[in-house]
Amino acid sequence: MPALFQHPALAGILPAESGGIILPLDEARLAQAQARLDGLAKPRGSLGRLEEIALRLACLRHPCEVAPAVIFTCAADHGVAEELVSPFPQSVTRAMVENFLQGGAAINALTGAAGMDLAVVDAGCRGGAFADPSVINLRLGDGTANLAKGPAMDVETCLKGLASGCRLAGDWIARGWRCLGIGEMGIANTTPATALYCQLLGLAPKEAAGPGTGADPAMVARKAEVVARALHVNRDRLAAQTKQGLPDPVAALACLGGFEIALMAGIVLGSASLQVPVLVDGFIASAAYACAVLAAPACADYAFVAHASAEPGHQPALERLARLTPHPAWGRPLLHLGMRLGEGTGAAMAYPLLKGACALYANMASLADVGAAGPSA
Amino acid sequence: MPALFQHPALAGILPAESGGIILPLDEARLAQAQARLDGLAKPRGSLGRLEEIALRLACLRHPCEVAPAVIFTCAADHGVAEELVSPFPQSVTRAMVENFLQGGAAINALTGAAGMDLAVVDAGCRGGAFADPSVINLRLGDGTANLAKGPAMDVETCLKGLASGCRLAGDWIARGWRCLGIGEMGIANTTPATALYCQLLGLAPKEAAGPGTGADPAMVARKAEVVARALHVNRDRLAAQTKQGLPDPVAALACLGGFEIALMAGIVLGSASLQVPVLVDGFIASAAYACAVLAAPACADYAFVAHASAEPGHQPALERLARLTPHPAWGRPLLHLGMRLGEGTGAAMAYPLLKGACALYANMASLADVGAAGPSA
Repeated sequence: MPALFQHPALAGILPAESGGIILPLDEARLAQAQARLDGLAKPRGSLGRLEEIALRLACLRHPCEVAPAVIFTCAADHGVAEELVSPFPQSVTRAMVENFLQGGAAINALTGAAGMDLAVVDAGCRGGAFADPSVINLRLGDGTANLAKGPAMDVETCLKGLASGCRLAGDWIARGWRCLGIGEMGIANTTPATALYCQLLGLAPKEAAGPGTGADPAMVARKAEVVARALHVNRDRLAAQTKQGLPDPVAALACLGGFEIALMAGIVLGSASLQVPVLVDGFIASAAYACAVLAAPACADYAFVAHASAEPGHQPALERLARLTPHPAWGRPLLHLGMRLGEGTGAAMAYPLLKGACALYANMASLADVGAAGPSA
Repeated sequence: MPALFQHPALAGILPAESGGIILPLDEARLAQAQARLDGLAKPRGSLGRLEEIALRLACLRHPCEVAPAVIFTCAADHGVAEELVSPFPQSVTRAMVENFLQGGAAINALTGAAGMDLAVVDAGCRGGAFADPSVINLRLGDGTANLAKGPAMDVETCLKGLASGCRLAGDWIARGWRCLGIGEMGIANTTPATALYCQLLGLAPKEAAGPGTGADPAMVARKAEVVARALHVNRDRLAAQTKQGLPDPVAALACLGGFEIALMAGIVLGSASLQVPVLVDGFIASAAYACAVLAAPACADYAFVAHASAEPGHQPALERLARLTPHPAWGRPLLHLGMRLGEGTGAAMAYPLLKGACALYANMASLADVGAAGPSA
């Protein structure tokens, strides 16, 4: 597993403090943490995936600290919306950002319930910058170009997005946040996400395309056709490969991605480079995560795949993606709740599992403390 | 579906305030709540099972209130431990109760992380009552008799346990708690739980028996054999049926159950009778829940099955059980984390989903508020 491979473009992008490299979790430290977990007052392994989470969190830069936490909900528009791949008009992107700002969206309710902060990021919504100063302005343009007709953005813009995401993660970590999450809003953005899964993981457009927020079968078929067209139209640029012979994630992100997807990929890379955990939301956030993994597989050690989306392409994509990471079992989604909204809602609902895992590792007595005999077998 | 069927023994047991009956959720109210959910600022159904949870919580006595919440961890010993069906010695039950009191157990860590209270209940641990006054003393005896040789307890004791559990639920609800949870501790108690699934739901002992806290294959085979023996030895008493032609849950609980299982079944019934939500933990708590459902299927409307245990018999049992309830889809477990510890740990990890669902229902703007156009399709 090429855990130490890193895309050359990352050198100038990762926070200086990281040394410009994403290191995998230290195996000796993992072994130590596993020994501690095995000695706690419970049968070995009986807390299931909470133990896997605790093990990972125990080996981070700030062991078993996940508070305060913030979800970055990154919003942008997509030129491909003109292909009629979403049942909602493009104006909904902007209206929903306003709703985030007024506190009336699902992500406001769920971050509130989970005790997380919410940061609203404008990655490039149509209609210009928002007046509200609480919006983090990292605009890469006024919506992407239509990926079914050519590249969604140029490589320079894509790299700028990755760098901005990295910097955003680094800034918040420097100011004390201990867990980041990525979510998104962008009408039509299941289409670029689907295209990225096809390009990066070899899924077929018909296999990867799904109803998203509620497309009917005819619209799903059109989405698959649009994705196939995008892969064809951009085929020359998409032929670029990494040294490992895998598809080049920067080329893929530029041709097929979106502004919010580039930013989210940057947040994952920045967070991982500083060894701080990052929660990955659903279908679209995972496509950003896939770009990050292809660029630096070790980043997966710091990412928690929050949930399996109802979108049918999500699970197959996650399974293929996990095989490219140092610890494939860690890439299984934590929750299976049939959610398909985005915004970071799944990440918010998975966050309490991280809090629980930290509490177990930090606060449980050992079998020896309890004076309970171990198994007599 | 016999949603209004109620075992005659419950009449004298349910809290007076409930009118002595467990009513199913009101269908008209459910339809109203569904209409509200469908009008919130998100695509319909896009929050998956969180919407199902919100729908149910919106129709309770205290709509969408789940705080404060408490988990009752009920502990007791089991005569069947002498059949060597657990890798741990029986003394561990008592040692773990002490650990709960000292705050060093998994359930302490997880209730703390989830913002829940923990109440430790002695349903009948061997060695007499605990000196610590924070233990809730609802002892039904000094451990049950060996169910492989005869009834685990007499019917009178079983009814006393159900009544005590009901009263406990009623007391805490009267004092303001808005969500209860059930969990347990009791060395060897996967054996009575397995026996109850076989008797109440028709599972075969070999299908229902699993490794529990870590039994090896020989021990699992012995457990299945012990369960088969228990069903045979108690066959005359177990022949009792309800008016619906289903196995009598009181007879089953007396012959095959445990003191903590009887108490937990009572807590579910008491909570449901007062229309307050109750979180059901894993393999053993679900067996108590099964007894409650067989006694009054409408109680399922108020119960949330927290998680699918790693115990192989759990999922088949839950599937069969759900078919006996008014809304089978609601009986699917919320989490799938491979946990198999008990104590209420799975219930604690599912609680944040209830909090999230309440926040969605209470705080989200409507599509009309947002001024976002709905789907253009």
